[in-house]
Amino acid sequence: MKKILLLGSTGSIGKNVVNLAGMFPDHFKIVGLAVNSNTELLEEQVKMLNPQIVCITDPDKGADFARRFRGRLTVMTGDRGLEELAASSDADTLVNAVVGEVGLRPTYRALESGKDVLLANKETLVAGGHLIMPLAERMKRRIIPIDSEHSAVFQCLDGRSMDEVRRILLTASGGPFRDFDRQALLNVTREQALNHPRWKMGRKITVDSATLMNKGLEVIEAHWLFGLPYDRISVVVHPQSMIHSLVQFIDGSLLAQMGVTDMMIPISYAMAWPERLPLKHKYHLDMQTLEDLSFSRPDQDKFPCLRLAYEAGNHGGSAPVVLNSANEEAVALFLEGRLSFADIPVLIEEAVKKAVFNPAPDLDEIADISCEARIRVREAACDGRFVS
Amino acid sequence: MKKILLLGSTGSIGKNVVNLAGMFPDHFKIVGLAVNSNTELLEEQVKMLNPQIVCITDPDKGADFARRFRGRLTVMTGDRGLEELAASSDADTLVNAVVGEVGLRPTYRALESGKDVLLANKETLVAGGHLIMPLAERMKRRIIPIDSEHSAVFQCLDGRSMDEVRRILLTASGGPFRDFDRQALLNVTREQALNHPRWKMGRKITVDSATLMNKGLEVIEAHWLFGLPYDRISVVVHPQSMIHSLVQFIDGSLLAQMGVTDMMIPISYAMAWPERLPLKHKYHLDMQTLEDLSFSRPDQDKFPCLRLAYEAGNHGGSAPVVLNSANEEAVALFLEGRLSFADIPVLIEEAVKKAVFNPAPDLDEIADISCEARIRVREAACDGRFVS
Repeated sequence: MKKILLLGSTGSIGKNVVNLAGMFPDHFKIVGLAVNSNTELLEEQVKMLNPQIVCITDPDKGADFARRFRGRLTVMTGDRGLEELAASSDADTLVNAVVGEVGLRPTYRALESGKDVLLANKETLVAGGHLIMPLAERMKRRIIPIDSEHSAVFQCLDGRSMDEVRRILLTASGGPFRDFDRQALLNVTREQALNHPRWKMGRKITVDSATLMNKGLEVIEAHWLFGLPYDRISVVVHPQSMIHSLVQFIDGSLLAQMGVTDMMIPISYAMAWPERLPLKHKYHLDMQTLEDLSFSRPDQDKFPCLRLAYEAGNHGGSAPVVLNSANEEAVALFLEGRLSFADIPVLIEEAVKKAVFNPAPDLDEIADISCEARIRVREAACDGRFVS
Repeated sequence: MKKILLLGSTGSIGKNVVNLAGMFPDHFKIVGLAVNSNTELLEEQVKMLNPQIVCITDPDKGADFARRFRGRLTVMTGDRGLEELAASSDADTLVNAVVGEVGLRPTYRALESGKDVLLANKETLVAGGHLIMPLAERMKRRIIPIDSEHSAVFQCLDGRSMDEVRRILLTASGGPFRDFDRQALLNVTREQALNHPRWKMGRKITVDSATLMNKGLEVIEAHWLFGLPYDRISVVVHPQSMIHSLVQFIDGSLLAQMGVTDMMIPISYAMAWPERLPLKHKYHLDMQTLEDLSFSRPDQDKFPCLRLAYEAGNHGGSAPVVLNSANEEAVALFLEGRLSFADIPVLIEEAVKKAVFNPAPDLDEIADISCEARIRVREAACDGRFVS
């Protein structure tokens, strides 16, 4: 029986974790929940799961919820509350499914307090991989990926020695603009960018899929998770998204993990690891009627975000922090209609170039570097070169 | 250091085993060799490998070779010699790469004498799975498949519990007549049947690939190797032969093994297991430039041999023995120009129906059942219904 703290319980991954815990009550007990602001759904989850502790990061919603549940359960608030929750003692596993940099510190606290971390929060490793991975090793705790690509690699490796791995190959759908030429990419609208061909996801990550920055961030995560240099992490464009990623071994043999494009499979794998749980028929891909699968090389000239991510990853230190924060801000500006699609990598590249380099930022420095990068992008977007 | 007895050292698999032993002298020492009749190549291999013992099953060639090498190495002859070699003490591993039923007894003797068996001989499990698998378990020895499909499944499973496996899926190229209609299949010539689109193989197995009997025999082998009932072993037509087979787990997740169509990879995997050996760049598939992969359901009406194999497997006992021997004889008749392509399954089905059923034949009974089935097919082929 795993005792789980679930951060981000009202998001799409969090809801699946709650569902799985309900389907397999002998395997999982959710003892703590954290949300940003959706206290309506949190209240339902509290009734159903009866956790000992919750956290609401939105201070007003948190204060209100605390008043209403006084005496019935421990309610924490704010980003500090999230950290405290992650460090609380009565659990062995943290599921980190929050979005954004706010996810980094709770991962750190969970490892520090001896918990395994099931990780769906990208920023944890992109910004803090150099702090998180050594801590996990020191504490002898595991970081198990929930993201479908990293779960695929994790499933293909399954404890094999990394000495036998030649490279890992992350598959990418290529996004909705895979076949656009450069000219067409200049005229991409928000509506087009938000229309992902395969996965239903939030707005920010959908744009990241269209620019290939999402894949770039995954490359950086993979570098930390699997301890491979960047020249042994490749990206393969695979529009059908049936192969979720691959590992190529030193003998040339490849293992690929495949399945329907539904996050239930990687979530259940991470939760049940090292076992597997039986899932319903609808999660079973029918190979005998599968459409044709195709593969190609990503075009880093047409999609500079992927190149920028490799460069930042190779540079290391604070570079991926700046990359990620600048990207978040540039995407927000694009969604606000204040930047064109093609401007996104331009602003990110400028931000990375102008940032002061820190070879090994600590948690506080990461927050400062991120903040500066965001301000720089906001300022640059106002300097008249871009659409308003 | 594995000490290897290699049966079938002058065949295509045997030659690769010799090459690999030469490439990795710290890993492998070949201490015994067996061939059918190619004593010219055997002599070269003896000079290179300096084995302690050899066997030539052809009696005349064997006697000649024994005279010439008297005092320098132990020379055995005949099928009995093959058994003795397999049982000889100074080795821990038998590579069984002989073709035909003659491979069954050496596998038995090797297990009985405490050796692991790397298995490329189909007949061992098709005819004797009910004897071989319990023996391997009793002796706590392993049977490691060399065949690319079974190696793929073995790699995907890699020691995982079979409780977590929903089904295995063997891929089939579909053979050269995949898209032929029934009428066109009636007019298939020897030359067409011998022209396999993907793998270079011997004549008999190439015809088996065209009829899908090869896949049917592999289904029976998989049943024994992995201990799964037939309704959890599927065949997927995949003309590009890049995915060599797959395992679907209870959570819906699939693992697939992929690679270039070269037997070096599964051979090296079997030899090095549980490790992997570094192979040259030409054995590394480039996913980024891979052609489109397609998948479909095999048509068991158009290719009745696959249905016949499932039926014989499900029937168990002597049925697969009859199936296999009848097929061998029917294919030989086809290659002699005395049967049409479409007659092959007709003769096999008759032979299986007419044979006396034995629920658990021993080694001697298997030989008798096989012999009777061959005679029955030869007789039936002469009764005037078929092309002459």
